[in-house]
Amino acid sequence: MKEQLTLIKAGGKVLDSDEELNKLLKLVTTIPGKRILVHGGGIFIDQLCERLNIPTQMVNGRRITSPENMDVVLMACGGKLNKQLVAGLNKLGQNALGLTGGDLNLIQSHKREPEPIDFGMVGDIDSVNSHWLELLVNNGVIPVVASITQSNDFELLNTNADTIAAHLSVALASTYNVQLFFYFDKPGVLSDSQNDQSVIPQLSRLDFETMKEEKTIHTGMLPKLHNGFFALEKGVAQVSLGNQMERATNLVID
Amino acid sequence: MKEQLTLIKAGGKVLDSDEELNKLLKLVTTIPGKRILVHGGGIFIDQLCERLNIPTQMVNGRRITSPENMDVVLMACGGKLNKQLVAGLNKLGQNALGLTGGDLNLIQSHKREPEPIDFGMVGDIDSVNSHWLELLVNNGVIPVVASITQSNDFELLNTNADTIAAHLSVALASTYNVQLFFYFDKPGVLSDSQNDQSVIPQLSRLDFETMKEEKTIHTGMLPKLHNGFFALEKGVAQVSLGNQMERATNLVID
Repeated sequence: MKEQLTLIKAGGKVLDSDEELNKLLKLVTTIPGKRILVHGGGIFIDQLCERLNIPTQMVNGRRITSPENMDVVLMACGGKLNKQLVAGLNKLGQNALGLTGGDLNLIQSHKREPEPIDFGMVGDIDSVNSHWLELLVNNGVIPVVASITQSNDFELLNTNADTIAAHLSVALASTYNVQLFFYFDKPGVLSDSQNDQSVIPQLSRLDFETMKEEKTIHTGMLPKLHNGFFALEKGVAQVSLGNQMERATNLVID
Repeated sequence: MKEQLTLIKAGGKVLDSDEELNKLLKLVTTIPGKRILVHGGGIFIDQLCERLNIPTQMVNGRRITSPENMDVVLMACGGKLNKQLVAGLNKLGQNALGLTGGDLNLIQSHKREPEPIDFGMVGDIDSVNSHWLELLVNNGVIPVVASITQSNDFELLNTNADTIAAHLSVALASTYNVQLFFYFDKPGVLSDSQNDQSVIPQLSRLDFETMKEEKTIHTGMLPKLHNGFFALEKGVAQVSLGNQMERATNLVID
């Protein structure tokens, strides 16, 4: 019988205010068993870019990361937000450790090919070195992982937090019974994006493909669902999405 | 026979350019045995404050840290510089881990009393939790510690990097034969601050007190020497200051 490990991924609006951050931290502490928190940069990256007059550019909902943007990712996401989450968890009696994919050589990636779109300093994950993560969680530590990976040339690169969450979950699934929870500002995947009561309790890949074709799915959901099904199909025990763990959308294998 | 552990503290000009950073990283990798790197924020904190139009204020060579300044410390020192050092060490074949005093509840401090001078978000160290540091170095990891501590109220505070280096050295001295090396831009403590050839090979506390009274010591040296003698008197095996380990000023007990 494998031990339970819950990986919580938080991004977007659930990181936008102190109130939201406190909700997230409380959620993490109420989960029994081993826990890992993965987070994106939320509004902080855009805010800091604006204050520093550094242009930002999105293509298909994904950030083009110039070297200056990458510095901001390191500062806002790898620095301030990450350490704020660590201290916040410690305040709630935990022992947290802030990490990027560079720390302990945790997440190896390669820079995305510049064709057809040059995303700049963006990394696609090659491998996860789960040895230290296991040692940490086995000793009661909550790793808090910022959405940054390390390339084979040892450059720090921007990587989607949903993707990092899925890859970490898969890497840990041979040792633990992993539950991956995408925590965001909606109660789950909605059949009607205007109605928070329309949560779909169970979603298969077939349902997902149909919804994609019919364009009835919110574009912000796509990376979570892509990565969620990837994780589920690679051995992660449970994948769910929502703002409460007990009432959320569960992904199911067809 | 205790194992050798070298703690390298780097601050100021030796962090100011990529060339200097590369020199530092090479130095760290050439040291045999267990290693810990402690760093300040160098020029990066001032530069980021300037770009963000955040006022900076120094009193007696020490920074007054407003909440906005503290955010900059977290971003520039705990984020960008720390992670750059980690990736740089990894590139040289090491396994580095970036830390602040909040991570793993490593360094507990309390906010300095606002009288006679209110330094703001500045922490004075109460204790060091060396358990994880020992586990890390015993497993080949190089901890890279930014000059940030965590208060008893779980606020992240700015703390002098020389002080952190001394306290970490003392906490580890019961387990290891600790050498503390203050790495800076001069070859050692100089008897004539205009002459780099005038390195004092051995300096006792009595010499130090005399030089302080005669005001023949550069003010930038004071925190290093204060902290260096503190460490030496608390059981650290060797304390030296300079830009080459084999030719530096060694502090000696009278």
